Amino acid sequence: MRITVLAGGTGGAKFLLGLRDHLRDAFPDGRGGTTAEVTVVGNTGDDIQLYGLQICPDLDTLMYTLGGGISAERGWGREHETFVVKEELAAYGMPSTWFGLGDRDTATHLVRTEMLRAGYPLSAVTEALCARWEPGVRLLPMTDDRVETHVVVDGERPGTTRAIHFQEWWIRHRAALPAREFVLVGGADAAPGPGVVEAITDADVVVLPPSNPVVSVGTILQVPGIRDAVRAARGPVVGVSPILGGAPVHGMADACLPAIGVATTAAAVARHYGARPSGGLLDGWLVHDGSGGVAGDAAAVAELDAGGITTRAVPLLMSDPAASAALAAATLALAATLAPGPL
Amino acid sequence: MRITVLAGGTGGAKFLLGLRDHLRDAFPDGRGGTTAEVTVVGNTGDDIQLYGLQICPDLDTLMYTLGGGISAERGWGREHETFVVKEELAAYGMPSTWFGLGDRDTATHLVRTEMLRAGYPLSAVTEALCARWEPGVRLLPMTDDRVETHVVVDGERPGTTRAIHFQEWWIRHRAALPAREFVLVGGADAAPGPGVVEAITDADVVVLPPSNPVVSVGTILQVPGIRDAVRAARGPVVGVSPILGGAPVHGMADACLPAIGVATTAAAVARHYGARPSGGLLDGWLVHDGSGGVAGDAAAVAELDAGGITTRAVPLLMSDPAASAALAAATLALAATLAPGPL
Repeated sequence: MRITVLAGGTGGAKFLLGLRDHLRDAFPDGRGGTTAEVTVVGNTGDDIQLYGLQICPDLDTLMYTLGGGISAERGWGREHETFVVKEELAAYGMPSTWFGLGDRDTATHLVRTEMLRAGYPLSAVTEALCARWEPGVRLLPMTDDRVETHVVVDGERPGTTRAIHFQEWWIRHRAALPAREFVLVGGADAAPGPGVVEAITDADVVVLPPSNPVVSVGTILQVPGIRDAVRAARGPVVGVSPILGGAPVHGMADACLPAIGVATTAAAVARHYGARPSGGLLDGWLVHDGSGGVAGDAAAVAELDAGGITTRAVPLLMSDPAASAALAAATLALAATLAPGPL
Repeated sequence: MRITVLAGGTGGAKFLLGLRDHLRDAFPDGRGGTTAEVTVVGNTGDDIQLYGLQICPDLDTLMYTLGGGISAERGWGREHETFVVKEELAAYGMPSTWFGLGDRDTATHLVRTEMLRAGYPLSAVTEALCARWEPGVRLLPMTDDRVETHVVVDGERPGTTRAIHFQEWWIRHRAALPAREFVLVGGADAAPGPGVVEAITDADVVVLPPSNPVVSVGTILQVPGIRDAVRAARGPVVGVSPILGGAPVHGMADACLPAIGVATTAAAVARHYGARPSGGLLDGWLVHDGSGGVAGDAAAVAELDAGGITTRAVPLLMSDPAASAALAAATLALAATLAPGPL
């Protein structure tokens, strides 16, 4: 069983933890692991260079989460983190101290930056970093080329706009400045990283986890060749809605969707991805069933089904590891009903 | 009163603290400072690149010491330092973790490296860093060119040699490998940093403080043009012996002097620097008087005097700030007797 997941940071990482737990139960290898192979295509559009360090927030969130090093409290960065370097940078009057640069995290960035300067591609660097973290999945950057998501916001004077780095918009401004457009700088000239296209086309199941459909999954799909690979995937493509009852359960997707003209609803996001038979990406889609005291989207199931996306309402809240594993199981169960052969 | 000091790290920094204290008393500006101007030409031969960071140990020791940020206990690096980044680098299996890279220190290196990459010369970077530390002296790197002291040591097989970076020899091997030669890589093509030559030639007094005569002061003098500037200095040149009674009071000068064929005595070091009238550098020289329970070198005074270097035996132990200030006062007092006009 080969599963490929197109993931952003926190939401995707949580889903992957559940998936790993589920696969150990469903496809045990007899040694505490699983015979299933999971490949994660990670978003690098939110990468940023600060203080000469090449920082890959989403790749690191995936690596730290699956490697047991994530801060459970914050959902990003390392547990037991300290911020001495950041305080000292501020004492020197350096800009960009709004970025949460932890000391442990700094070491990761130093290793990455040093390897990149030595000429290794990001995919090789990521593999080297993962040798320490043993995430239990194959983590592939969506591209080895340098790309950066910039956000077009209103300028100081009426009628003008300016572009800022995604991280500045997301962290410094808490996504409070209305986003007019997201631009993946370098995106048009980027190529999928080594193994990315094959991992998607050859997978038994491709999953779009509950990551941000604009600046995470949407960014990955912007790399030329990746959307086509998903369209051409041999296995079914199943998505999990990041929107529950009209709101993101985590993150700030509601600040991103308006910029691409998509309503903040599970149905609108599914229609945005589109049905595979009609030139879109999705064979299946999971929406929230309204459990856990959070409004659901069961009402949209029939309409989406009719539109060519097989939709199920299940519990989407990943409130604990068991809930995340159950969601992964539901995702694979839906995929099994959509596969050309037995999964 | 303009004083220029050619300094390495710890010993030079301690002397400079004393000099600053003395000048505030001797040449007060009425606002708690001094009207005297001190320029420090700092050694950059022990600079090293680690993890992509440009590290300047001697400049940092001077800056931190005079800026009140040095670790009093260690004599290098920052007080209240933590070593999280270093531990994490080790966890990634990175080499060179023998280097004491502190977290606070890392921020200094990040700022420096970023500015260097942006195209600023090291002299401008050093000035920018000093804007935070306010050392009370003008700190000039000996050169803006990249130079590195390497140490030739015995190879694995008999009869062979190999070169290692000075820091690796000094820190990792605690200077225990016999040094066959010190080579300033890049030295032949280096030029004195902006203002260095003028600071030396135009000073009222030039001081060679009790820094290592081989790998600190000796390295500075190797930059083409600097030795000539000292020779051409309008003011007297006075040195303070780093060797007391046949041993360095701090550091490992005894591991360096044999490589250049100089005995570990105050007199031998003075003869190595040489008398200005005979083509050398020194007008005056201070040796230890045997106070503080440490053997002195008063016996060498007459011989050095006869050789053209006016020598005085005074207390050289910088055991507290008052002792350091008294040594600085003695240095200027000797210089006053050697100056062409009144100082």
